[in-house]
Amino acid sequence: MRTQVGIIGAGPAGLMLAHWLKQHGIESVIIEHRSRAYVEARVRAGLLEQNTVDILKGLGLAGRLEREGHLHHGVYLSFDSERVRVPFGKLTNGRNITIYGQQEVVKDLTDAWLAGGGQLLFEAPALQIEGFDSPAPKIHFEQQGEKGVIDCDFVAACDGFHGIGRKTLPKQLYTEYSITYPFSWLGILANVAPSTDELIYTYHQRGFALHSLRSSTVSRLYIQVDNNDHIDNWSDDQIWDELSVRLGTPGWSLQTGPIFEKSITPMRSYLIDTMQAGRLFLAGDAAHIVPPTGGKGLNLAAADVKHLVDGLVDYYKNGSMRSLDRYTETALKRIWRAQDFSNFMTTLFHKQDEHGSFQYQLQRAKFRYISQSEAYATTIAENYVGLPFEAFT
Amino acid sequence: MRTQVGIIGAGPAGLMLAHWLKQHGIESVIIEHRSRAYVEARVRAGLLEQNTVDILKGLGLAGRLEREGHLHHGVYLSFDSERVRVPFGKLTNGRNITIYGQQEVVKDLTDAWLAGGGQLLFEAPALQIEGFDSPAPKIHFEQQGEKGVIDCDFVAACDGFHGIGRKTLPKQLYTEYSITYPFSWLGILANVAPSTDELIYTYHQRGFALHSLRSSTVSRLYIQVDNNDHIDNWSDDQIWDELSVRLGTPGWSLQTGPIFEKSITPMRSYLIDTMQAGRLFLAGDAAHIVPPTGGKGLNLAAADVKHLVDGLVDYYKNGSMRSLDRYTETALKRIWRAQDFSNFMTTLFHKQDEHGSFQYQLQRAKFRYISQSEAYATTIAENYVGLPFEAFT
Repeated sequence: MRTQVGIIGAGPAGLMLAHWLKQHGIESVIIEHRSRAYVEARVRAGLLEQNTVDILKGLGLAGRLEREGHLHHGVYLSFDSERVRVPFGKLTNGRNITIYGQQEVVKDLTDAWLAGGGQLLFEAPALQIEGFDSPAPKIHFEQQGEKGVIDCDFVAACDGFHGIGRKTLPKQLYTEYSITYPFSWLGILANVAPSTDELIYTYHQRGFALHSLRSSTVSRLYIQVDNNDHIDNWSDDQIWDELSVRLGTPGWSLQTGPIFEKSITPMRSYLIDTMQAGRLFLAGDAAHIVPPTGGKGLNLAAADVKHLVDGLVDYYKNGSMRSLDRYTETALKRIWRAQDFSNFMTTLFHKQDEHGSFQYQLQRAKFRYISQSEAYATTIAENYVGLPFEAFT
Repeated sequence: MRTQVGIIGAGPAGLMLAHWLKQHGIESVIIEHRSRAYVEARVRAGLLEQNTVDILKGLGLAGRLEREGHLHHGVYLSFDSERVRVPFGKLTNGRNITIYGQQEVVKDLTDAWLAGGGQLLFEAPALQIEGFDSPAPKIHFEQQGEKGVIDCDFVAACDGFHGIGRKTLPKQLYTEYSITYPFSWLGILANVAPSTDELIYTYHQRGFALHSLRSSTVSRLYIQVDNNDHIDNWSDDQIWDELSVRLGTPGWSLQTGPIFEKSITPMRSYLIDTMQAGRLFLAGDAAHIVPPTGGKGLNLAAADVKHLVDGLVDYYKNGSMRSLDRYTETALKRIWRAQDFSNFMTTLFHKQDEHGSFQYQLQRAKFRYISQSEAYATTIAENYVGLPFEAFT
């Protein structure tokens, strides 16, 4: 099989890349380790920055998103029992976020790709990336017991944290950076209408809580737990009780309902500072993980794809590797900004030292500063909706 | 001796308080542990916020400050060899800082107080504060071997970190908060014209450096050193070499000259969360210490004095303790904001983890964000020039 860009991974990054390249007349083939059903059911992020929505609109793939997604013009931030709202539009010249599940994006992009005659092989794990330092790399893969090869000009590894992409990158090319936070998130999905119109992030002396949303009938909620906690320690009633206590403010109460998914996820920051080796390029979770506080993961993947498309278009139009060879440098600017913002939101709203400690008091001083300063509220708003691409040039 | 407000300490806080009370027709007496020569020669802060300058102007005590002080409209911030300028006026509606040594403020206020017939006893240490929980407290002191007593309505302890004020406050009334940073400042005063028109704060892989100013002929400079370092380890040449390396940027060089003072100061954050016991009130360093990064110490003292004057005026005008009893709560809002800002500036520009670590990368991401976001630059500017009093109501 021969194509211009071989893409490993049919998550949001791989699919966006394929569509965007097609818009520029560049061919690609996608292979995906998992089944279509698995990928489309995989619950992940659900917060789309303005930039990400604009990309999907530009690709003509935002139809259902615009009909079914929920546009949010602000976010609630709470500390102890104080609550403030940060309005996005007013502080960022009308930029906003849209709540729309990652698996819905994947469904839309998969449907459109296949409907347009695009090649996408499911249950086809990549086995080896060969010759990425030559002009003719190959992706070796397997499907239903048969071996196959994609001959291509470039390999885009959009294959997540555990994929073959980063494993193939020679270790001497990059430095790894990581933080493991001393707490995890217990997250649930429940069949109950959200008790709020916009997300609520809360610091509580018992720990962080987040009321997120998925749709008018499905809510997504999280609580901070210890890293050594286990999901079996928590009954559904205990989870709702804990959420009610942590999110509670006078005059507001949390509606409960049947929980249909629950799990504990560790919180970590991770990245490598080289996302290219010759003609192999990494995008999205393959190259970086942010803690979910602030919802940057999927949006960083979309930004990587933008920079990769810019480079590939420059190559196929002008025959120059110049822009591709700057891919890492360009992408890393936003990645470090997002790492810092995610770290900021995480450390601002999670219980770290003792309640009442100096650290706690600084967290509270920062929280209060949000109401005292439009500039400070703006820094939160502009990072949350995503800084424009021009900010990083 | 009988007065309305007995003031312990003839530093900036005590002197500003005495003058301000006098403006409202309230009598006070100041006693000072040290000699006049000692107090007036004591080199401390030299950065006056807009609020502090406005207070001194309002008291008619800013004549020499306006002639000899240097108005700064911005500050330079450096990281590795990148340098940006944060302009104050543009970002804060014309608010600025003035460089004018604390000892000059003390001289001006002492001269004016004595010229106006004010009582100020030097070399008169306070021995005991008696009856602060009664309507008739007494300050016992000593001067030239003679014991004395000030009978007053209120005691204002403006007597610094080691003063009798905080020691008198019953321990069960307050919680202490403190951080000791794992580094110190080696500071020098030198007879050389500043090599810059505005302050330069620098992160360098060898550690923090600061080029501050005192006058057109005197420069004040600092470098980060280990807590266990000793001033005898540093020759003048070594200090200048280190400053030149850390502050150096292409096309700019540091002028050197004779050093006439050098010392090492540890960096710490400290505060107590109760600044009142009955009729005893603490102001300034007696109640809180900030690391010098950002220059908040003297300015916080001035803000405490403002709140204390508001309370005392309310008492003498309306006979009500209501406003005085809210003194701690009111003052703490700005104190925690300043603690957070001082901690922010300290952690942003000091070497903490290894150069190149995740922590370092987050520091660099924050530094770069200053150029990317007017809102972020504004948060630095508005804290640096001092948030208006209205921000904390």
